[in-house]
Amino acid sequence: MHEAAATAAQVKAATTAEPLFLRACRGEAVERTPVWIMRQAGRYLPEYRAIRERHEFLTCCRTPEIACEITLQPIARLGVDAAILFSDILVPLPGMGVDVRFEPGPRLDRSVRTAADVATLRVPDPGEHTGYVMDAVRLVRRELPAGVPLIGFAGAPFTMAAYLVEGGGSRTFTALRGLLHREPATLHGLLRVCADTVAAYLREQVLAGAQAAMLFDTWAGLLSPRDVREFVVPYARHVFEAVRTAAGLEAVRAIYYAGESAGWIEACRDTGAGVIGVDWRLNLEAARARVGRDRVLQGNLDPSVLLGPPDRIRERTRDVLEAARGAEGRPGMGSRGHIFNLGHGILPETPPEHARLVVDTVRELSGGAS
Amino acid sequence: MHEAAATAAQVKAATTAEPLFLRACRGEAVERTPVWIMRQAGRYLPEYRAIRERHEFLTCCRTPEIACEITLQPIARLGVDAAILFSDILVPLPGMGVDVRFEPGPRLDRSVRTAADVATLRVPDPGEHTGYVMDAVRLVRRELPAGVPLIGFAGAPFTMAAYLVEGGGSRTFTALRGLLHREPATLHGLLRVCADTVAAYLREQVLAGAQAAMLFDTWAGLLSPRDVREFVVPYARHVFEAVRTAAGLEAVRAIYYAGESAGWIEACRDTGAGVIGVDWRLNLEAARARVGRDRVLQGNLDPSVLLGPPDRIRERTRDVLEAARGAEGRPGMGSRGHIFNLGHGILPETPPEHARLVVDTVRELSGGAS
Repeated sequence: MHEAAATAAQVKAATTAEPLFLRACRGEAVERTPVWIMRQAGRYLPEYRAIRERHEFLTCCRTPEIACEITLQPIARLGVDAAILFSDILVPLPGMGVDVRFEPGPRLDRSVRTAADVATLRVPDPGEHTGYVMDAVRLVRRELPAGVPLIGFAGAPFTMAAYLVEGGGSRTFTALRGLLHREPATLHGLLRVCADTVAAYLREQVLAGAQAAMLFDTWAGLLSPRDVREFVVPYARHVFEAVRTAAGLEAVRAIYYAGESAGWIEACRDTGAGVIGVDWRLNLEAARARVGRDRVLQGNLDPSVLLGPPDRIRERTRDVLEAARGAEGRPGMGSRGHIFNLGHGILPETPPEHARLVVDTVRELSGGAS
Repeated sequence: MHEAAATAAQVKAATTAEPLFLRACRGEAVERTPVWIMRQAGRYLPEYRAIRERHEFLTCCRTPEIACEITLQPIARLGVDAAILFSDILVPLPGMGVDVRFEPGPRLDRSVRTAADVATLRVPDPGEHTGYVMDAVRLVRRELPAGVPLIGFAGAPFTMAAYLVEGGGSRTFTALRGLLHREPATLHGLLRVCADTVAAYLREQVLAGAQAAMLFDTWAGLLSPRDVREFVVPYARHVFEAVRTAAGLEAVRAIYYAGESAGWIEACRDTGAGVIGVDWRLNLEAARARVGRDRVLQGNLDPSVLLGPPDRIRERTRDVLEAARGAEGRPGMGSRGHIFNLGHGILPETPPEHARLVVDTVRELSGGAS
């Protein structure tokens, strides 16, 4: 009797408490593993491609109604536990003084490679220059179901600097890596401007209603562990500190994701993020051993698994859940310290029903016996 | 007196024994750390660019006299302890039945994506189809100083398969990764053909005189640790076993290099290679802890350091030597278990004198007190 009562009380707590995703971010034991998918609002969805046939990519980012519609597209279709704002990490650039186009890769109207170039950059007021993002955040919050929180995001300072130095994407990022070794002080100067810009921008998203704040450090994986500690971590930390210390934002969860971080995943701790994203090229059990138990891990199914047949998708999804549980694992007993995601953005070639299958499998396999 | 005599005997042994590089490959304690540089014969050298102004890339690979000349170019200029044959990992493809051009990235005349495609491939006789490589090996061996051994090389089976599936290079290798999950048996079939081809090809180089055998697994870093163990390691192991078991090749040293292996460096042990190359994105001390003491590590200076000023190059070169020594390190007392190299190929933008500076610094800092 006592046990049954306790279970009912737990179920009640689970349904009346704050959303599953946010409780999991905090490291609480939860009734099942929450799941969302990086780039869940994107090109693999026919309803997204339909919008893009009518509107340019940047128009979608800059029109709150469209950004809101795209953000919401995957929520019901996939059954995910969190929404992430549809936008792009480079939208703060024009406010800094650098214009950007997408063809479809990002192309900046100039590159920033000298101290004089850095001196021309501004730290923009995020409300003034990217008010459309804040409007989209407010719209999305109104439209989302109560149980599905909204993640705001930005590019991490190092990754923003990488695009600014190269003037766009690059295969080898040689200009960036050369600058790092030839003129480290210039790069630090650029990183300070990027960090201040991103801090203000991400804080503003949280003030507008984003319930978690994520930094994408796409290009941090270019660097050696030593350079990560000097050029990557302190600037991500600066952003998260600014977001956390702003009045009333104590509860915000900070998520840090870097691509190809297998060589230095332990350094991600020092960004101050409570949730650390893990690329698929590192097993979650190994990541746990190196990161420690006081951080939540997010990831890390190889996105290309979703190009395979349903049986394989189920099997590999289960593998990730088991690696997350590690040696202590007891299947079907809820979850702690893990948010399920892919190890990188979903591939445009993915059948949408395969994304749904991943979500359903996580719900089924990680759920409590109650 | 006794000590002085011992030192003299040691010095004599060091000068009359087989080359430093080969003794280091074997894991012996050596008088200093040997050093060579991946792509040491290549575009950063003006004398290489001068040859390329007169001859196409493939002509250089296919003409033994030119391949020999290019192979020798960096030896005296840099003072490296090993030569590596100038060639390309894709030269076996035409013998397999797939033509390849360089524009300048590799472009295959077809892609191999089905079981029927795989069935069209042949395992070529390496003497018949790539006799020019074997002639180049023999030429180079005649021309090299006695203390500088020649490393033969090939693309590892997984990386060969990656190019065959994509029909060239790719940013995301989605066709390859999709095939892996949709039709793993087809990919295994392709990998078997690649492994047999590479085994025969690399064995033939050793029979022609190459004193060490290296596999480059450029694209293994695309995979999760689990997939590396299934699709990468067994096929590299097959090649090294074939090279080792061929009569008279017991002493050949096997070197395995994979890019972006930080998530699964320990799996490289299972290729059977005695020497494991390490990408710059993993600290050598961490690599040592995971790989164990019974393997030699090769690497791993970030190639972009060579774009910086001399002071920084010296400092970062010393850092790599110290990480290689790990906790046991005693500077200036010789070396064991480490071959110095970059963590990836030298960048074309590198000033040649910076490559020389790396070599000189390794010689100076790792040398014995005697």
